[in-house]
Amino acid sequence: MKIIIVGATGTIGKHVAAALEKEHEVIRAGSKSGDVQVDISSPESIEAMYKKVGPFDALVNTSGNGHFGPLGTMTDADFRVGINSKLMGQINLVLIGQHYINQKGSFTLTAGVLTEDPIVLGANLSAVGGALEAFARAAAIELDNNVRINVVSPEMVVESPQYLPFFHGHIPVTMDRVTAAYIKSVLGAQTGQTYEVL
Amino acid sequence: MKIIIVGATGTIGKHVAAALEKEHEVIRAGSKSGDVQVDISSPESIEAMYKKVGPFDALVNTSGNGHFGPLGTMTDADFRVGINSKLMGQINLVLIGQHYINQKGSFTLTAGVLTEDPIVLGANLSAVGGALEAFARAAAIELDNNVRINVVSPEMVVESPQYLPFFHGHIPVTMDRVTAAYIKSVLGAQTGQTYEVL
Repeated sequence: MKIIIVGATGTIGKHVAAALEKEHEVIRAGSKSGDVQVDISSPESIEAMYKKVGPFDALVNTSGNGHFGPLGTMTDADFRVGINSKLMGQINLVLIGQHYINQKGSFTLTAGVLTEDPIVLGANLSAVGGALEAFARAAAIELDNNVRINVVSPEMVVESPQYLPFFHGHIPVTMDRVTAAYIKSVLGAQTGQTYEVL
Repeated sequence: MKIIIVGATGTIGKHVAAALEKEHEVIRAGSKSGDVQVDISSPESIEAMYKKVGPFDALVNTSGNGHFGPLGTMTDADFRVGINSKLMGQINLVLIGQHYINQKGSFTLTAGVLTEDPIVLGANLSAVGGALEAFARAAAIELDNNVRINVVSPEMVVESPQYLPFFHGHIPVTMDRVTAAYIKSVLGAQTGQTYEVL
């Protein structure tokens, strides 16, 4: 199976890439590093990546930014950081990628625990996560050629302890449990699902 | 109570306005008609509306557009119709309105049944609804001065039979049940909730 992993050098992406490359061809895509470069905030850059890579069987995205800050001073421009990167970046990976993906291929996107379990400063990331989960449910019933789509929604992870002070009472999850959710999405057969890793 | 209703001449908004004005001061806001004009896709227009209306106790929004069309030909520009109108329009009504609303005031936004129950052609509206529901959960824990926020998520309504052919097997809801959800949000005391009207 030929699998593109966008964000393959990131905290989560590197574990997913290491696990999948044991038995599959992994194409690492990153903003600066990797086998191919892509800026997910640009539809043109996404199209160029797919053209360069050619037909593929799975796309996993673990990249994308959001705005993290207080609601009381949040502006339209702040909110659009998450809209343009983590939301539209992942939506466009699907909208454009559906024209390049092989039959029975899959898209696996990344949301996060804040969708269902909000924290102070996290409203932008909550909204982005909610959009991604609902989009996956809807896209799953329209994608042609038995192509699937799922979302992985992890708790904060043990390898990002710098975020712990903002996640009061949250219990970080291990990378092997997070990785398993991506494996389930790519190698399993379900579609339209959100796999929460809690 | 002084209540701004954006979209007050629309299918849902006119019923909500009629119900609330029996005992409250209702300010009707619309893109072209009403007591005050507002283009919710423009933060500047939203700010101007709040400045004109002055301090208020509740904001209800029943307006906002999305893209309705097949996933297979959907583009970034198509998807951003819903992002810029129904999503960022409602987000900005809150981000800006939080600086004008009275203590114990409330924001009531509108999503829709497609968030949880998708149909073909509806991926953009599903995503927008998911974002709004998650945003309300997150904003509810940050809004100052006991200000509340909820989302109403109605099934298709009996007064919009033109959409029925796209909603196979959906059972339209009556306007009085939809109106009741808005009343519950404005006059009740809950926050961070999504009131599904099914």
